[in-house]
Amino acid sequence: VEKQLQAHIGGAGRDGSISKEAFRQAVVNTLERRLFYIPSFKIYRGVAGLYDYGPPGCSVKSNVLSFWRQHFVLEENMLEVDCPCVTPEVVLKASGHVDKFTDLMVKDEKTGTCYRADHLLKDYCSEKLQKDLTMPPEKVTELKHVLATLDDLSSEELGAKIKEYGITAPDTKNSLSDPYPFNLMFQTSIGPSGLLPGYMRPETAQGIFVNFKDLYYFNGNKLPFAAAQIGQAFRNEISPRQGLLRVREFTLAEIEHFVDPEDKSHPKYSEVANLEFLMFPREEQMSGQSAKIIRLGDAVSKGIVNNETLGYFIGRVYLFLTRLGIDKDRLRFRQHLANEMAHYACDCWDAEIECSYGWIECVGIADRSAYDLLAHTEKSGVPLVASEKFAEPKEVEKLVIAPVKKDLGLAFKANQKKVIESLEAMSEKEALDMKAALDSKGEVEFYVCTLEKNVTITKNMVTINKERKKEHQRVFTPSVIEPSFGIGRIIYCLFEHSFYMRPSKAGDEQLNVFRFPPVVAPIKCTVFPLVQNQQYEAVAKSISKSLTAAGISHKIDVTGTSIGKRYARTDELGVPFAITVDSESSVTIRERDSKDQVRVSVEEAASVVKGVSEGHTTWADVWSTFPHHSSASQDD
Amino acid sequence: VEKQLQAHIGGAGRDGSISKEAFRQAVVNTLERRLFYIPSFKIYRGVAGLYDYGPPGCSVKSNVLSFWRQHFVLEENMLEVDCPCVTPEVVLKASGHVDKFTDLMVKDEKTGTCYRADHLLKDYCSEKLQKDLTMPPEKVTELKHVLATLDDLSSEELGAKIKEYGITAPDTKNSLSDPYPFNLMFQTSIGPSGLLPGYMRPETAQGIFVNFKDLYYFNGNKLPFAAAQIGQAFRNEISPRQGLLRVREFTLAEIEHFVDPEDKSHPKYSEVANLEFLMFPREEQMSGQSAKIIRLGDAVSKGIVNNETLGYFIGRVYLFLTRLGIDKDRLRFRQHLANEMAHYACDCWDAEIECSYGWIECVGIADRSAYDLLAHTEKSGVPLVASEKFAEPKEVEKLVIAPVKKDLGLAFKANQKKVIESLEAMSEKEALDMKAALDSKGEVEFYVCTLEKNVTITKNMVTINKERKKEHQRVFTPSVIEPSFGIGRIIYCLFEHSFYMRPSKAGDEQLNVFRFPPVVAPIKCTVFPLVQNQQYEAVAKSISKSLTAAGISHKIDVTGTSIGKRYARTDELGVPFAITVDSESSVTIRERDSKDQVRVSVEEAASVVKGVSEGHTTWADVWSTFPHHSSASQDD
Repeated sequence: VEKQLQAHIGGAGRDGSISKEAFRQAVVNTLERRLFYIPSFKIYRGVAGLYDYGPPGCSVKSNVLSFWRQHFVLEENMLEVDCPCVTPEVVLKASGHVDKFTDLMVKDEKTGTCYRADHLLKDYCSEKLQKDLTMPPEKVTELKHVLATLDDLSSEELGAKIKEYGITAPDTKNSLSDPYPFNLMFQTSIGPSGLLPGYMRPETAQGIFVNFKDLYYFNGNKLPFAAAQIGQAFRNEISPRQGLLRVREFTLAEIEHFVDPEDKSHPKYSEVANLEFLMFPREEQMSGQSAKIIRLGDAVSKGIVNNETLGYFIGRVYLFLTRLGIDKDRLRFRQHLANEMAHYACDCWDAEIECSYGWIECVGIADRSAYDLLAHTEKSGVPLVASEKFAEPKEVEKLVIAPVKKDLGLAFKANQKKVIESLEAMSEKEALDMKAALDSKGEVEFYVCTLEKNVTITKNMVTINKERKKEHQRVFTPSVIEPSFGIGRIIYCLFEHSFYMRPSKAGDEQLNVFRFPPVVAPIKCTVFPLVQNQQYEAVAKSISKSLTAAGISHKIDVTGTSIGKRYARTDELGVPFAITVDSESSVTIRERDSKDQVRVSVEEAASVVKGVSEGHTTWADVWSTFPHHSSASQDD
Repeated sequence: VEKQLQAHIGGAGRDGSISKEAFRQAVVNTLERRLFYIPSFKIYRGVAGLYDYGPPGCSVKSNVLSFWRQHFVLEENMLEVDCPCVTPEVVLKASGHVDKFTDLMVKDEKTGTCYRADHLLKDYCSEKLQKDLTMPPEKVTELKHVLATLDDLSSEELGAKIKEYGITAPDTKNSLSDPYPFNLMFQTSIGPSGLLPGYMRPETAQGIFVNFKDLYYFNGNKLPFAAAQIGQAFRNEISPRQGLLRVREFTLAEIEHFVDPEDKSHPKYSEVANLEFLMFPREEQMSGQSAKIIRLGDAVSKGIVNNETLGYFIGRVYLFLTRLGIDKDRLRFRQHLANEMAHYACDCWDAEIECSYGWIECVGIADRSAYDLLAHTEKSGVPLVASEKFAEPKEVEKLVIAPVKKDLGLAFKANQKKVIESLEAMSEKEALDMKAALDSKGEVEFYVCTLEKNVTITKNMVTINKERKKEHQRVFTPSVIEPSFGIGRIIYCLFEHSFYMRPSKAGDEQLNVFRFPPVVAPIKCTVFPLVQNQQYEAVAKSISKSLTAAGISHKIDVTGTSIGKRYARTDELGVPFAITVDSESSVTIRERDSKDQVRVSVEEAASVVKGVSEGHTTWADVWSTFPHHSSASQDD
């Protein structure tokens, strides 16, 4: 069985899908057995979509977040904030989540069990395509088309397909309800009165947007700048699947980079422009080509990537992921198709990582234009704007909307104020259209959103004119470029990319290894006395103390287990270095993947491991500095 | 005004309470102005009890948490885990939170506004004592007694006092409802069906308890070991007060140290036994004395502190808080009075920090005995136990409860199974009591909790005997010693303890300073060119690059602002070191509190700051190594 598995893992299986599943099973078994993660509340039979990180997983997570802080926050001098998860409804109403953060759901008409409508349709099509080999070619084309356009289907279209294909509830075969939207936010109530509805935030970004004014001031009223936040986000999935990839609570790390919409250059862009990696532009997707290696600078200069700042972050995300240990050949940047993108977005790219579940969206990098700041400006009445002072005043032509209060008051009485506010809030285009209509017809129907109805505006009620004015500054709503990282997804893909198996020395079993780079490894080093005796144990303890003082996480193992077994145990946790005490004056240091060993004095051991764990030196440096060691007894 | 304020801050105000409020106002103004924290969702007029950490506050928080990990998790090799906030009801039912995590609330009978009953009574008594100087002495004694026993009052007693004193709703003067319990957990619903109630966790500890079995296995089935968790917790306060001290969402850092109840020694106890600090044992509190300095080792050996492990953690908490910058003279360890402690707890001590709001509980260190593990064992049916293998088998006397299924089946039919389970689950004492009753009376009433009623057990239905048996191991439920840290409270107290004011050089204004130790400081260093020119700016940028590479958070300021102003700005953020570029070959480094400056070469600047920021060297070392620098123009 193990040989077969190894063959699969090596990719030698004839059927790619079985191979992937066997590989995944091997990784997941190791992860769960060594407590990288655990289904939450397991003794109570768990809750779908909730997972705990056990000790090594928790450590990997905290290392990934530290490195994220170093790579983004510190490197770019970002303003990091930390906002609550509990969020009042008004904020998420403004952002659109209360109305639109939904998935389409169908219910088993007898038992009431809920399913995601698109999942059922997808499963039906995939299974049919796989198993029904007698299907006519038109049908094959049709099902493939449904799969390709699944995300675009409306509630009615989904419902119609489910009816047409006769899809029933998977467990009971009962018939299903029509699809209807289910809001994915966890709802709660703030305070004792029960009158203030709230939600657990679905993303951390809103906490940054509502603080824009203060953060802009903190930054000396200068653009561009970026704010960042790491924190929990929540999504009450209808039916969670795929382990750590689709969960109900997860850690997001988000950056909101605020920039002048008229100048989206980036001062450090040249540092990433020469990077080359797999990109999958819209055009290639539409024409059925595959992702290809493109120089980032070319993608920007050809306009494939909308602007320099977006390009800069794509490059930085590439560096972040590959330095963590993501395989660059299984990482691509896929551009959103026009129909995937929100109407307000300029451009959007997902960093997708290939794992046994396919290509998984792990980071989204979007130019969201002014959408979010405008939405909160409108809802809160607080202008979230930036300004640029002119070196000398500029003469500009400006639209002036002057409501005539007396006439408006006569016509609208108590509603006067709302009508005036709506008139003043018109965009330039709306105002000019109104002027034209009033000039030609004398009156016009006008929708007042705060009254939720049309009113009739006549020529005497408002004057609209372009006037020349001297302006000292330009006031504008900044654009937001948002790289948003799903930390749990990145970690899961990292687990898969880091995992491999190799035969034990005797060749009688396959041993699991995680090839985590030191920056990610949950424990940097183990310390073993070669044999159980007091002197070696004392040396091991003194080295352990030095490692603790140096802030290097490690594990000391003074049990009598064979050294080979001890190496195997720690390889399976991805521990990159092992110090073995085999004398009172010097020790060996072993590197996990090469199994190479050097001999180092007891005094130097901790600092050598610190240097190579923190990336100040490399194993190659260590290998060329210290005498090599080989010992049959120590090798596994 | 500022002189007056300074007098207050210096403690010179005649009325201590006014002085405290003025001091608090000065600190809070600085904190809010410099965005250490911000009321959340401010543009929507905020939500009581929710705060954001802005950039410097967020950085302080992440430094405190890193130091916590270093001081506790790494130093003790703790198993850190990371569990979700969303928790199904069954877990919090077992822990007692669903039934007992409540505060007593009263409602304005007309408007429905809610108040905490004890707050209203407390405010009434305090105000009366402060303002009504004509009160008869018996009345004064009575009100003081009410204040002292406020936490012990039952719902009925609280209601009676509110009626007796004629307390009405503070805003409207309307009459109030009787007090009734309000559960402080934020409730939600998991999944789309609406059938699985959940809560946002009120503490992180439960996530550890439910994982005990896996963690014990991970630790090689050995005791003692500790697990730890850092994460958000939630408490839907009735009426939040006191800024960051009583909030609806907060970060907890909790440790659950599992130990054999028969051996609560700690291997590293001797490392803390000689510490001396303010302790406030139960006896001193009862007899009206004040806290006094006690050597920790004496408190343990005299039995004031229940056991070594509890003592060890008290010592470690003391070191943690004082190293963060908490003033040791305003830190005390107060023992819980018998009536404050949960019935199952052995002993409990709070680390209380004195700030302008009084003595604030910031860390609770409790020996919770076996309570939590037993509660989850009972509810889940999964035994959360540890075992100790005997070197050789021991002969023990053991109670054997043997239900007679035939007779029980005849008597209880369908309920047979539940009765049998209840009989088998009896404690030794219950079983022996039953045996005695059956022997003397032939039958006994027995409460079966799963049936929620009494049944009659007769002599023929069960045999209860003590038998001698050979045992190879002892199986037991470990005790839990729990240090639990309210991170936000610690940070707020740290802000107050770190804040001071000093006159500007010209003497015309008071400047704010936070004397954060480097480990806590939000930014470790600033880099300024003394005057604006290209050469100095280039040097500043190269030093900034070295600092980034070394992972030292810093800020570069190339604006033309006067150097004095720039120092003042960064002193207010608690930045400990400032590098001023005044030549192309060397720079000055200034220490915040002494304002002392040394001269260092450009090449060395970053590494000197790194060393002293990370605690590898001290400022005293730097001061004795490098030439001193004094310059009137650079001083403020």
